[in-house]
Formats: sequence, structure tokens, C-alpha cells
Amino acid sequence: MTGTLYGVGLGPGDPELLTIKAHRLICSAKTIAYPAAVGVPSFARQIASQYIQEGTTEIPIEMPMKVERFPAKEIYDQAAETISRKLQTGEDVVVLCEGDPFLYGSFMYLYERLRFDFNCEIVPGVSSINACAAALGRPLAARNDVLTIIPGPLEDEQLQHRIEQSDAFVIMKVGRHLPRVKTLLEKLGLLGAAGYVERATLPEMVVTPLVDYPNETAPYFSMIIVYKGDEAWTLHPQSL
Amino acid sequence: MTGTLYGVGLGPGDPELLTIKAHRLICSAKTIAYPAAVGVPSFARQIASQYIQEGTTEIPIEMPMKVERFPAKEIYDQAAETISRKLQTGEDVVVLCEGDPFLYGSFMYLYERLRFDFNCEIVPGVSSINACAAALGRPLAARNDVLTIIPGPLEDEQLQHRIEQSDAFVIMKVGRHLPRVKTLLEKLGLLGAAGYVERATLPEMVVTPLVDYPNETAPYFSMIIVYKGDEAWTLHPQSL
Repeated sequence: MTGTLYGVGLGPGDPELLTIKAHRLICSAKTIAYPAAVGVPSFARQIASQYIQEGTTEIPIEMPMKVERFPAKEIYDQAAETISRKLQTGEDVVVLCEGDPFLYGSFMYLYERLRFDFNCEIVPGVSSINACAAALGRPLAARNDVLTIIPGPLEDEQLQHRIEQSDAFVIMKVGRHLPRVKTLLEKLGLLGAAGYVERATLPEMVVTPLVDYPNETAPYFSMIIVYKGDEAWTLHPQSL
Repeated sequence: MTGTLYGVGLGPGDPELLTIKAHRLICSAKTIAYPAAVGVPSFARQIASQYIQEGTTEIPIEMPMKVERFPAKEIYDQAAETISRKLQTGEDVVVLCEGDPFLYGSFMYLYERLRFDFNCEIVPGVSSINACAAALGRPLAARNDVLTIIPGPLEDEQLQHRIEQSDAFVIMKVGRHLPRVKTLLEKLGLLGAAGYVERATLPEMVVTPLVDYPNETAPYFSMIIVYKGDEAWTLHPQSL
């Protein structure tokens, strides 16, 4: 009987925001795998590090820093092959996933290569979207609001159209798109309502009204949240 | 010095999907509050029940079963008053929130009444959206996909417009809107790609392609998820 592939959500960064289930699976894992940007410590591994036991087999999946178009097919083929060999010995493999395994991220590229041959279990995690709203101290959506998650790299016309159709929206992966997004939000009269968060729940977290964010670009792990629904919902960033 | 108001996400239902932080706060709470539909056991309390200590003061916030328009103002006023008195004695109050505190739900109505007078900390939780995608075994969104969360009660024209603008979408609070939504998805050629989940992560969970769901209506705690982005992503419901 082959092992089970677990895709385990780690949450946004604070090790206390792992679920009890994720904690249990990582603590008891004989083999773990995780994305690792070449040349820097793996963020996923860092989140879970205090729960990883001595002697656990580790399979880092080394990715180039910027994978802007299609994900690197050969890297995922190879990682899937390595994991597959482990699963075939009857041993489970626990894949560490930043945030939630199925909300953006890279776990799905392993999963699509393995899911028809092996038993899989996905353990949902706290998304950074929820963590950023918590840090800003303002709800994401209520009642019959439409909430849209919009990737920053979309062109202005696309961004604008989705923004106009939403009662609330989150712009993810802001990065170098920050100036363009700010200009667009100002044009739509929404800059004042926008909250900005980077590195949510980590010691280096930044939480601020977007108008007060001083830099020209933002890191990859950043987002802009706007709640149009109710003007009473002013930003109330918490100090955590 | 006044106490802190904690809004703590419980996750979708499985007690193991509380975060380690939520677990810690509930175990050590002297006072908890939670929504409680009149005449039925509180779902929020049930999720957390094994973590609630003997002797903890409990503040059930009793809501009528169907609160379709504005939430019952007087009920939240009263609950906020009760919680406020506790906070003023210097004691913390931990509010139990199904799923995530700021993604729909009712915690925000307490929060808007208390947030300017008291220190608040929001602990994000696993949303049922993530739990349902995990149960269906299919990603929510990838790369530059636009993901839209759409409440079921919206009119057909509104639903259709948002659906057409999204690469992936989630229809929440399906309930009695199920026949209308199915008809609309069929018209748009998306019925075959739709997954249905109710009572995610609970023993009575139902996970099925929407076409196979036999009933005329759905419970409130149900959702429909469609990922248009990639036809290779067929539904792969997991048995958990």
C-alpha cells in the first residue's frame, strides 16, 4: 500500500497560526517536502521549523526566485518523481505549504502530477488574506458583499473592471506594480480607503493606510485591501 | 487598565482546524462569547467545546435563526454592553468566531461597537472556502487568476456578471437559491465544472460534483466552487 501525500497549510508566517492538525502531521512526519527559493532559506520551512523532528527526511524543491510565467516544469517533474518514489515505499510525505495549499501558491503543481496515482489529503490553512485583514483591523466582506481577489500583475483595464464590480477587493502580489496600482486607486477615488500589509504576522510586518506607505515598490508578500461597502469601516491597524 | 477583546477564528468545524493560537486563547480564557442561534446548540461553541475550561464565564449572543437584512441591532447592542462591562473590569473576553472573524460572519457587528473603546486583537482562522476547496481536491486559484466570492442571494444578473468576470468563483450561502444557481451555471456552460460542499470538515460533510447533488435546496453552510482556469483540474473529491 502506497503512502499518502499531505498538502499542509502553514498559515501566513506566525508559527502559532498553524492548525492543530498541521502541527500534528508535521511533528509525526518521516518525510517532508517544501518550496525553497534558490539561495535563500525556505520560508515554508522557517514557519514550521520548530515542529520538524530530528531525523526527518527533507525534500527541498528548489525554485528560481522569479517564476513569472509557467512554473518551471522540470523542477516540479523532478520533485514529483522524488516524492513518488517515497510514497511507493509506503511512506507518507508531508508537503509544507505557505498559507493555504490551494489558494495560489505552488503546491498544486506537485499535486497535479501525483493526485491520480496516490491518496492525497489537503489540510487547509489560514490564508494571508485573512491575516492581513486581521492586522488592518477591518472586515474583508459582510452580508451580500462581493469580494474579489485580484493579482497585481493584471493590466490597468482588467484591474479597474474587477475593482468596479466588487464591494471589496484584495490586490495580491503587489511588488513592482505598486505605483501603477496606487495611481489607479486614486483615479477611482479609493486610495483613502486602501490598507496595505506586508509580511503579515511576522516580526517585520508592516501595516499602514496605503497613502502612508513610503516606498516605491513593495515586496512580493504584500497586499492591498479595500472595503468599499461601508464608510464607517475606517482602517484600524492593530499593533500585534 | 481595560481588558482586550479577542476575535478568534475557529475554522470551519473540525476542532483540529483551530490554530495553535486560538487553542491557547480559548484554553486560558476566563470569559468567552459566541453566537448562538435561538433554540439550537451554538455551532461556534461546539467547535471549541473540548477546549473550554470549567468555570469559564460564557456570554451566548442569541440570534434569531434567519437574519436576512440588517443584523438585529438591539441584540448586538446588548451583547456589546455585556462584553464592555467585562472588559472594563480589566478582564479579557474571547469571542468565538466560526471560520475567520472578518470573512462574512457576525463578529464584525460586535467589533464595530467596541473597537474604539477597547484594545482588540483579531486571530485569523481557516475559512470554510479553503476547507471546501481542500475537500473537493481542486485548487481555488493559481497564478494570475481572479477569484470572486459571491453570495448566493444576489440576483441572476448580478451573479452572472461576476461569474463572467472571474477565472474562479465561490458561491456562498447557497440555501434556497440552489435551483436558480444551477440553472444559471447550466446556461453559462459551467455546471459540469462545479463542485458542491456542505458542512465542510464535519462528520456529516457532503462533497460532490454539483450535477450529482440530489436535493432541491441546500443548507446555509454550503458552497459551490467553480474553477474555470484549467480544464485539467477535474473534481477529485477526497474522502477525509
